[in-house]
Amino acid sequence: MTVAIPIQRLSSQDANFKPKLLASLSLPMADDAAIDAAVVNILKQVQSEGDIAILNFTKQFDRLNVNSVAELEISKKDLEQAYLQLSPEQKSALDIAAQRVRTYHEQQRKEAGCHSWEYTEKDGTRLGQKVTPLDRVGIYVPGGKAAYPSSVLMNAIPAKVAGVQEVIMVVPTPDGARNSLVLAAAWIAGVDRVFTIGGAQAVAALAYGTKTIPSVDKIVGPGNAYVAAAKRRVFGTVGIDMIAGPSEILILCDGTIDPDWIAMDLFSQAEHDELAQSILLCPDATFIEKVQASINKLLPEMPRKQVIETSLKNRALLIQVKDMNEACDIANAIAAEHLEICAANPRQWAEKIRHAGAIFMGNYTSESLGDYCAGPNHVLPTARTARFSSPLGVYDFIKRSSMIEVSEAGAQTLGQVASTLAHGEGLQAHARAAEMRLKK
Amino acid sequence: MTVAIPIQRLSSQDANFKPKLLASLSLPMADDAAIDAAVVNILKQVQSEGDIAILNFTKQFDRLNVNSVAELEISKKDLEQAYLQLSPEQKSALDIAAQRVRTYHEQQRKEAGCHSWEYTEKDGTRLGQKVTPLDRVGIYVPGGKAAYPSSVLMNAIPAKVAGVQEVIMVVPTPDGARNSLVLAAAWIAGVDRVFTIGGAQAVAALAYGTKTIPSVDKIVGPGNAYVAAAKRRVFGTVGIDMIAGPSEILILCDGTIDPDWIAMDLFSQAEHDELAQSILLCPDATFIEKVQASINKLLPEMPRKQVIETSLKNRALLIQVKDMNEACDIANAIAAEHLEICAANPRQWAEKIRHAGAIFMGNYTSESLGDYCAGPNHVLPTARTARFSSPLGVYDFIKRSSMIEVSEAGAQTLGQVASTLAHGEGLQAHARAAEMRLKK
Repeated sequence: MTVAIPIQRLSSQDANFKPKLLASLSLPMADDAAIDAAVVNILKQVQSEGDIAILNFTKQFDRLNVNSVAELEISKKDLEQAYLQLSPEQKSALDIAAQRVRTYHEQQRKEAGCHSWEYTEKDGTRLGQKVTPLDRVGIYVPGGKAAYPSSVLMNAIPAKVAGVQEVIMVVPTPDGARNSLVLAAAWIAGVDRVFTIGGAQAVAALAYGTKTIPSVDKIVGPGNAYVAAAKRRVFGTVGIDMIAGPSEILILCDGTIDPDWIAMDLFSQAEHDELAQSILLCPDATFIEKVQASINKLLPEMPRKQVIETSLKNRALLIQVKDMNEACDIANAIAAEHLEICAANPRQWAEKIRHAGAIFMGNYTSESLGDYCAGPNHVLPTARTARFSSPLGVYDFIKRSSMIEVSEAGAQTLGQVASTLAHGEGLQAHARAAEMRLKK
Repeated sequence: MTVAIPIQRLSSQDANFKPKLLASLSLPMADDAAIDAAVVNILKQVQSEGDIAILNFTKQFDRLNVNSVAELEISKKDLEQAYLQLSPEQKSALDIAAQRVRTYHEQQRKEAGCHSWEYTEKDGTRLGQKVTPLDRVGIYVPGGKAAYPSSVLMNAIPAKVAGVQEVIMVVPTPDGARNSLVLAAAWIAGVDRVFTIGGAQAVAALAYGTKTIPSVDKIVGPGNAYVAAAKRRVFGTVGIDMIAGPSEILILCDGTIDPDWIAMDLFSQAEHDELAQSILLCPDATFIEKVQASINKLLPEMPRKQVIETSLKNRALLIQVKDMNEACDIANAIAAEHLEICAANPRQWAEKIRHAGAIFMGNYTSESLGDYCAGPNHVLPTARTARFSSPLGVYDFIKRSSMIEVSEAGAQTLGQVASTLAHGEGLQAHARAAEMRLKK
C-alpha cells in the first residue's frame, strides 16, 4: 500500500526563499508561565524541606509510597543485576557502544585541551591555566516512553573520562516501573549512585542537596518542560547543559544514493516526536521526486508511522537548490543539529560547513549510527545554537583556573602599567596595590 | 589619622563555622520582576520595530537626539583619533596590556584545544571534531562610572585571537559623553564596529539585529541589572557569557608578607562596589591583628574610602585557620573568583586548590596586576561558580562540530549494534536506517 504524504517543497529560486526558510525553522518559544510557577514552588519546597519534600512529590507525581529517600536509591548490586540479566545480544551491543563512546571521548580529552599548561617569561613570571574536573555531576534521565539507555552512556561517560569523582543519576519510575536497559547502561557507564526521582523535584535535590541526596556542581541530561524550567531556574547555583529543543536533521544530497536510504534517514529524525524536523537539500529535482516516492512507499511499514507522518507534514522540507555549493551556504544558515552529507566526495562539502552540531559524511554514515555507537556524543546543539555551541563533551565536565605568578622583576614593569591603567579607571586602591610592590 | 573599621572575625574552630561561612558568602538573588517585565517590553519592541525602537529608547534613556541609527555608529577613524590623543604614558600602558593579553590568549588557543582533530580506525572509519570560530560577536561595555577600558581588551582580544571575523561593540553614551580610553581600547583590540547604544535595547539589537545593527552569535560583557536580565532572556537565540555577581577576593596568607600589602589587596576588591567581598584566611592571629591595623591606618588615604568601608563592614571576613592545609580546604568550599596565595612556597598550596577563577601566587602577584596586564583574562566566575565554570577565554569564541565518516566496512559492524539498541528503545526507523546499509 502506498500513501501520498504531502511534504512542503521549496526552491532556492523562490521569491523570499531565505525568510520563508528561516520562518519554517523556528518554533514558538515554550515559555509557559504556569509551568514556571509550579516549578518555582517545587524548588522552594525542596530547598526548605529537603527529603520530606522529595518524598511528598514522589508520592504525588510517581505514586511511590516509601518512608525514606534512602529507599528510593537503587543499589550498585541492582544495577549490576540489570546488566547481567540482559540478553547476550543486548549486552554485547551496550558493551560495544559504551567502549566506542569511551574511546572517542578519551581521544577528545587529549585533543580538546583538557590539560593544564603554563609558560615562563624571561623575568621568571609564570602564566597558564590549571584544569580540574568537576567534583560531582548530576544526570537527569527521563522515565517512561523517552527512556533512552543510549542517553545514559552519552551523558555519563564523558563525565567519567573527564575525571568526575561522583556521578549521580536521577530517573523517575512512575508506579515503580524500572527500565532495565537504562539501569544496565548506568552500570556500564560507571554511574556512582542512582535515585528513582524525577521532575523539578529531582533537579532541586541535585542543585540544593538534601540530607540523603548530595548536591552536585552541574546537571546535564534531557527532560520534559518541568525539568527544563527547573534547570533554567537553578542555573547559576549549578552549571547546566543546553536546554534542548526538538531534534533536527538536514541532509545535503547530490542524488548519488538510494532514495530509500534518504527517506529512512528522514524518518529516523521524524519518529522522535511530532515537532522533530527533517530537511533535504538537493540540486536534482528528479531525485527529490524519488525520495518523495520512497517516503510514500516506506511509511506504511513503520511502527511509528503516525508520529513520522505528523512530523513530516508539519515540519519537513524538500528543497531544490542550484548546486551543492549553494546547499552548503543554506546549511550554514540553518546550522542544523545533525547534518548528513550524502555525496560522492563528502569532504569537499564538509569543508564549507561552518555551523552544524555533527556532520555525517558519506552514504554509509547514517545518522542513527552516530546516535548509538559511532563514538561521538549524541547530545548536540539544536535550534540553530550550533552557531555558538558544541556537542556535549569532556570539556563540559572540566573547568579552568588561571595561574599567575609574577616574579619580583615582573612586578616592577607590570606594576607601572597597572598603576597607569588603574588611575585611568579611577580605581586607586588597585593602583596602590601595584605601586607597593615597586622597589623604592 | 587612624580609624577603627569593624570587620567580622571568624575562626575555623567556631561552632557551626562552615554554615556560618557559607551564609556570609551568599547574597539574595537579584530577581527583580519589575526589571524583568520592563526588559521583556524593550526586547519585544526592538524585535518588531528595529531601528525605530533603538532611536526611541536611546532618546529616552540616554537623551541622544538623532535621526538614524547610523549616526550612533562611531567610525574607525574616530576610534583611532581617541587612541592617538592619549597621553604617551596611557598609550604605552594600553599597548603593553593589549600585547600581553594577546600573547597569553594566543598561547591559550594553542594549549586549550582550539584546533580540529580526527583519527582513523582500522576499517577506515574516521572520527573527530572540527573547530570553527563564531562568525560575529557582540561586546557590551557599560557607560558611566563603571566604564573600564581594560574590560574592552579582556572581552575583544580573545574573540579576535579565536578568529571571530566581526566584533561589534555597544557602549551607551548618556548625553553624548564618550570615554576616550574606552574608544582607544576598542581601537587597539581590533573591534570592528562600535554603536553608542546601551541597556536592554542594545542587547536586543545584537540578538535580533536591526536594519542598521547586525545580529551576532554571542553577547559577552558586563552590565547593570537591565542588561543582565536582557542577556538571560535572549540566551538561546544567541550565546551569552556568565551573568557576573559582585567581585570577590580570597587571600590565603601564611603571615610572611607586609600586612599593608594585604590590606591594600583587600581594598582593591572592596573599592569596586559596596557588595564586593574581601576575605582573609590566615593561621597567625597576630598577623590578622596587623592587617586590621593596616586597614585602619590606610583607609583614610583612599579616595574611594566610603565604598571600601561599606564593603568591608558588611561583607569582609578575617578568618583564623588551624594551618595552611585547612585554609586550602576552606578555599575550595568558597571557590573564589580571585584567590591570592601570599606564602613562602605558594605552589605547594596552589596544588591543593580545586576551585578558583584565578590563582595569584606569591607576594609580588597582586590581584591588580592580573586585572590589567599580566595577560590572563580578568573576566572570571563569581559566586562559587568556579566550581563548574572557567575564565573567559578563546574557547568561548569557538565551537565544535562532530565529524563522523563511517566506512562501508564500519557500517556493517556498527549497523548491527545500532539496530539492536534502536529496537531496544522502540525507534524502528533508526534501526532500519542502519540495517539498510548492511550487505545482504
